[in-house]
Amino acid sequence: MEAVLYRISPQTRVINLLSDAPSENPELSSYLLAALRHSFPAGSIFLAVIDPGVGGDRLPVVLSADGQFFVGPDNGLFNTTALHSDHSEWHQIIWRQVNCSASFHGRDLFAPVAANLANKSAEGMLSPVLPRDLSKWKADLAKIIYFDHYGNAMTGLSYDDAYAGKQLAVNATLAEQGDTFCSVKKGEVVWYCNSCGLVEIAVNQGNAREQLKLQLGEVIRFL
Amino acid sequence: MEAVLYRISPQTRVINLLSDAPSENPELSSYLLAALRHSFPAGSIFLAVIDPGVGGDRLPVVLSADGQFFVGPDNGLFNTTALHSDHSEWHQIIWRQVNCSASFHGRDLFAPVAANLANKSAEGMLSPVLPRDLSKWKADLAKIIYFDHYGNAMTGLSYDDAYAGKQLAVNATLAEQGDTFCSVKKGEVVWYCNSCGLVEIAVNQGNAREQLKLQLGEVIRFL
Amino acid sequence: MEAVLYRISPQTRVINLLSDAPSENPELSSYLLAALRHSFPAGSIFLAVIDPGVGGDRLPVVLSADGQFFVGPDNGLFNTTALHSDHSEWHQIIWRQVNCSASFHGRDLFAPVAANLANKSAEGMLSPVLPRDLSKWKADLAKIIYFDHYGNAMTGLSYDDAYAGKQLAVNATLAEQGDTFCSVKKGEVVWYCNSCGLVEIAVNQGNAREQLKLQLGEVIRFL
Repeated sequence: MEAVLYRISPQTRVINLLSDAPSENPELSSYLLAALRHSFPAGSIFLAVIDPGVGGDRLPVVLSADGQFFVGPDNGLFNTTALHSDHSEWHQIIWRQVNCSASFHGRDLFAPVAANLANKSAEGMLSPVLPRDLSKWKADLAKIIYFDHYGNAMTGLSYDDAYAGKQLAVNATLAEQGDTFCSVKKGEVVWYCNSCGLVEIAVNQGNAREQLKLQLGEVIRFL
Repeated sequence: MEAVLYRISPQTRVINLLSDAPSENPELSSYLLAALRHSFPAGSIFLAVIDPGVGGDRLPVVLSADGQFFVGPDNGLFNTTALHSDHSEWHQIIWRQVNCSASFHGRDLFAPVAANLANKSAEGMLSPVLPRDLSKWKADLAKIIYFDHYGNAMTGLSYDDAYAGKQLAVNATLAEQGDTFCSVKKGEVVWYCNSCGLVEIAVNQGNAREQLKLQLGEVIRFL
Repeated sequence: MEAVLYRISPQTRVINLLSDAPSENPELSSYLLAALRHSFPAGSIFLAVIDPGVGGDRLPVVLSADGQFFVGPDNGLFNTTALHSDHSEWHQIIWRQVNCSASFHGRDLFAPVAANLANKSAEGMLSPVLPRDLSKWKADLAKIIYFDHYGNAMTGLSYDDAYAGKQLAVNATLAEQGDTFCSVKKGEVVWYCNSCGLVEIAVNQGNAREQLKLQLGEVIRFL
C-alpha cells in the first residue's frame, strides 16, 4: 500500500496507523480510528481500509471531518469519526484506475486518491454525496474494540466523569479505577481513562487479554 | 538496516518491503520480489536480503533491470526479476567497508551501496559481470511462495487466461476461481488473480494457511 | 507515538528502533540501546521508552552522550549508554503539556521534547541535573538481552579478544565460536561477535531461542 504513496510529495509522512486494527470488523475499528485521529494535526489524510467487502458493492468514499480527511471504504469505518465531528462532508470516489485489481483497493483506488488529496489535485476524482443519516450509529460503544501489543484492552467508550470511582465489569472480572497501570500492584487489574480519552482495561506489568481471557467485541459495564 | 539509509538524500523513501518474506529461501522470495517490484516507480532501489549465506562465499551484486535496481546477495533472490525483464545487467559489488561485520551485510555492505546508487555515486563500488545463464530458472513457480498477514497464500505462478474456470488443487483441497475473496461464501476457499498478477488462494473472512494446513513451497496444480 | 513527530522538520527520519525491545525491563534494554546507537550518525535523537513506571514517580530525562541525544524515562534505560560514553550530560525534562495523559508519555511528554531537540528549540524544556553515580552499573552484562526475529540471542557482553576460541555455556548447551551463522552446519549452535560488537548465540538456519529454550535474562559464561 505504501508503494503508491511513494510518489507523493516529500513533505508527506506515511504512518502505518491501523495495521493491527480488528480485521473484518469495520464497526470496532471505527471507534479506534475516531479516537486516534486527535493525535494528528489539521490537514492529515488517513488512508484506512478494513474489510470485508473489497471488490464487492461497497462504495469508496472520502470523509472530510473537522479539517482532516479519511479515504477508504464506506462500510462504517468512518461513521464514528463523522458522528464525533462538528463539520463533516462525504464524497464518493468516482475515479477508477484502468488496471484496478479486484482485491487491493488500498493500493489501486484509495492510495492514489490520498496522494492526490495531499497534492491538492483530487477534485475531479470525487463527487459529493448527500449527508447521511447516522442517527442509529452510537457515539460510544461499551465493548472492547482493540488490544494493543501489551494486551491492554481498549474500549469504544469515551471516559465520562459519571464513571469516576465505579467498578468496571468485563467477562468474570471486576476492575477498580486507577490513573494508570501502576495505580495497582503488579498482576492486578485496573481500568482507567487512556491516552485517547477512552475507557481501557489493563493488568499492571501483565497481559489483560490473556489473563482475563478477553475477546474483541466483549461487552463492558459499570456497576 | 535502516540506520545507514538514514544518511541518504531527503527524497529517499525507505520502504520495508520484505520483512516477512520466506526466510532462508531465496528461491521462493525471488518470485515474490519479481511480483512486488511492479508497484514501484522507475528508478526505485530495492535493498533485499535473504539468507542463508551471509559471511559465506556468495557474491554481493547489483541487478539493474528495466530501470530499477536491486542490491543484495547473488543467491537466486534476483533471478526471477532478471528473467522477467527486457533489459538486465549484473554488477558485482567490489567495494568493502573497513569494519564490515560478518553477519550483517544488509547494513555494512548492501545499504551503503544502495545509498550511493540513490546519490548517483556508486560507480567505483561496482564491476560489471558477464550476463548469466538463467535458462534453467523457471519464469513461474507453481508453489506457495508467501503467506500474507491474513493467511492468504500467494503462489509464484503468473495468472494466465488458460487457467480461467479451472479448479485449483492444493494439499487436499479443491478451490474454484473467483474475482476476489467475497466471490465465495464466508469460510469457503477461492483462488483468484491477485493484485500482483499471481495466482492466490484465500478463505473468505478466514485464514487459508491455517484452515487448509498449507506450507511454504507447497505445490499447486490446475485440474 | 509517531503522531507528534509528524510535526517536526522534513529532514527528520523517524526510525522505529526498539519496538521489540524487552518490555518491562529497562536494564536489558539499556544494553541493547547502547549497542544499537553506534549505527546512527552524530546528532541522532533517540526517543526510547521502556516501562514499567509510566505515570509513576520516575523522572523524564534527556541524556546527551558523545553527540547523540536520548529522550525517555530515568529508569536505567540510558545508563549503559552514559557509562560507555566519553562525555555525557543529563537533563531533567521540566516542561509539561497541559493535557498530558497518565499512560502515554511517549506521545505527550517525550515526543514533543524530541521534536524540539530536532528543531533546536528545547532549551526551556530542560534543566541540568547533577552527574550521576553509575559506579554500580556494569559496563557489560553477561546475560541474554534480546531475541531478534530469527531467534538469535543477543547478550549484553561486548566481545573481547580474551573470549576467542572459548566455549560459551548457556542453559544446558555449549557453543563453539564462529565468524557467522554458516560457520557451523545447519542446525548447529554457534556463538560469534555480532554486528553490534556483542556476543551472540545462533543456530544456523534455525531458531536458537526455541531450540535451546532460552529466556531473556539468562546468564551466559565462557569455559
